Amino acid sequence: MKIQERELRRDRLDGRWVIFAPERGRRPYEFHPADRVAPSSVGACPFCPGHEGRTPPEIFALRAGHSRADGPGWRVRVVPNKFGALGAGRTFRRRTSGLIEFGAGTGVHEVIIDTPEHRREWPDLPITQVRDVLAVWRSRLAALETDAAVRFIQLFKNKGREAGASLSHAHTQVIGMPVVPADVARETARAGQERRKTGACPYCRWIASEKALGKRLVAFDSHFIAFAPFASRFPYETRLFPTRHSAAFSGTRDEELASLAKIIRTVLAALRRVACDPPYNIVLRQASVAVRKGDARSAHWSLEILPILTHIAGFELGTGMYINHVFPEQAAEDLRK
Amino acid sequence: MKIQERELRRDRLDGRWVIFAPERGRRPYEFHPADRVAPSSVGACPFCPGHEGRTPPEIFALRAGHSRADGPGWRVRVVPNKFGALGAGRTFRRRTSGLIEFGAGTGVHEVIIDTPEHRREWPDLPITQVRDVLAVWRSRLAALETDAAVRFIQLFKNKGREAGASLSHAHTQVIGMPVVPADVARETARAGQERRKTGACPYCRWIASEKALGKRLVAFDSHFIAFAPFASRFPYETRLFPTRHSAAFSGTRDEELASLAKIIRTVLAALRRVACDPPYNIVLRQASVAVRKGDARSAHWSLEILPILTHIAGFELGTGMYINHVFPEQAAEDLRK
Repeated sequence: MKIQERELRRDRLDGRWVIFAPERGRRPYEFHPADRVAPSSVGACPFCPGHEGRTPPEIFALRAGHSRADGPGWRVRVVPNKFGALGAGRTFRRRTSGLIEFGAGTGVHEVIIDTPEHRREWPDLPITQVRDVLAVWRSRLAALETDAAVRFIQLFKNKGREAGASLSHAHTQVIGMPVVPADVARETARAGQERRKTGACPYCRWIASEKALGKRLVAFDSHFIAFAPFASRFPYETRLFPTRHSAAFSGTRDEELASLAKIIRTVLAALRRVACDPPYNIVLRQASVAVRKGDARSAHWSLEILPILTHIAGFELGTGMYINHVFPEQAAEDLRK
Repeated sequence: MKIQERELRRDRLDGRWVIFAPERGRRPYEFHPADRVAPSSVGACPFCPGHEGRTPPEIFALRAGHSRADGPGWRVRVVPNKFGALGAGRTFRRRTSGLIEFGAGTGVHEVIIDTPEHRREWPDLPITQVRDVLAVWRSRLAALETDAAVRFIQLFKNKGREAGASLSHAHTQVIGMPVVPADVARETARAGQERRKTGACPYCRWIASEKALGKRLVAFDSHFIAFAPFASRFPYETRLFPTRHSAAFSGTRDEELASLAKIIRTVLAALRRVACDPPYNIVLRQASVAVRKGDARSAHWSLEILPILTHIAGFELGTGMYINHVFPEQAAEDLRK
């Protein structure tokens, strides 16, 4: 196959340049591949049924009618993160002193245990189970939005050590925080400018254009579209949008959840095939709570599915840019096969 | 030791919030530690003396008087990156189409081989050798600044697999690119605002304030200061500034180079002791070439030394924020010991 020429790309919404350099995929690599499989025993796992006492008391669970809170019998279980990045009990007040700003680390950090089965990954779960997990995502996101102290919510999933997981049992995390990340605020401002210029939601336009173009499409149905973004940060990165203009995941309709479960599983199964079951992150991208409750005409949620095949290094840490050796047109073709 | 309360912090120049959550350092970790040592043989290494033919022809070298280009006898050697992220031979023209921007991947990607010795890391090198490497950094940065196609230069060092290195033989990389990273442009704008408000370089003020405060200091002498930044992204992160207002590394004076070599070695040796010889990145932070050649009153270069003890995960990829479990005041105390 002919190696493509290098290219610089960015989407103007997030503003981050990405360098595409396919030849870098050929460079010699001296280190041993990471041990991807974590052969932990069920016995040590705090997320397995029968070990409910090893987590803080549950916040929510989908469970069999006769079963009791903090005992077995659940299908999906939500608990506070025992080692939460943020915690309750104090009030956030932003303080400034010269060039620095700070405040108490207040907020919410929850863990959603995706399945009672220790070794099942998402592509191995029944569609109904994935849909149940997504329904729990929706309900936790909706609950956190009612918390006046929460200004921004980040939902994410770390699968595999190289993707930042510390435990292998499938789980999702949700962090509700009292500040809006600078990158998110910047993207919101840009999306608003675009909407004022064109009169339309820029994400809706983006979706229509990728659908019409086709060459970066990975999968779609009547509710969702998955494509390899023009300025993908990572090889085989996929972005997944609801085709209906929808500001927040919490507004997802019941009939959309099953469709979303199917399309996520399709992408993850393709990724497993194409990239040898890689570590990955799933990242929810949506605007701040205030923006979504206010003028949501240019807010449109999406999910990123980010395979972790390379390490973030000095270049990325210095510039905030990325180097990707797989063009999204190639990635989409491989993932569609 | 009492665990400190969680805190949110940011410095207003880069604008990125960091969550400090010391308790996260205690969470269970199921995976095996990474194999940090890459016991590669000299035989396979393209950076070892005698293997000069395995790299593209050298751009520059410090070498013994009688030795010849692309043969042994060098102390520091600079070659084009054989698998460069950017390359020469085309012209960058930025093109916009709807929400996307792109252009040819033009630029420069060089590798500086820090030492002929395959297994020597910076803390093991003589001070004179480290000073020689820094002198080569200076000369390559100065050379790239004269290239009209180069708008921004990123110099960085990846040490260890988890820090993104693909080869273990000590080396530094320099990428000259035709665009300015969004994060850098944002910081430049903020630094300019601060200068106009106070009349002084905000970095000079920052240095003075850390020196006066003392509790985050790691090391200093008459030319440089190293401290653990208030909003450190990583455990045991160190930031190293010239105390003289200086916009670009290329302007470093001869007498400053030896001092810089000493202070970097001091920090790296402390890091090796405190964090068990971790993988790390060294990242040069400075403004774009145009800013540094124009109004450089609020441009002030620095180096970041970033130990990689945890993986970047879904939270960081979604928000651009970081979670750090070691407060910089503690990090500085440990590193000073």
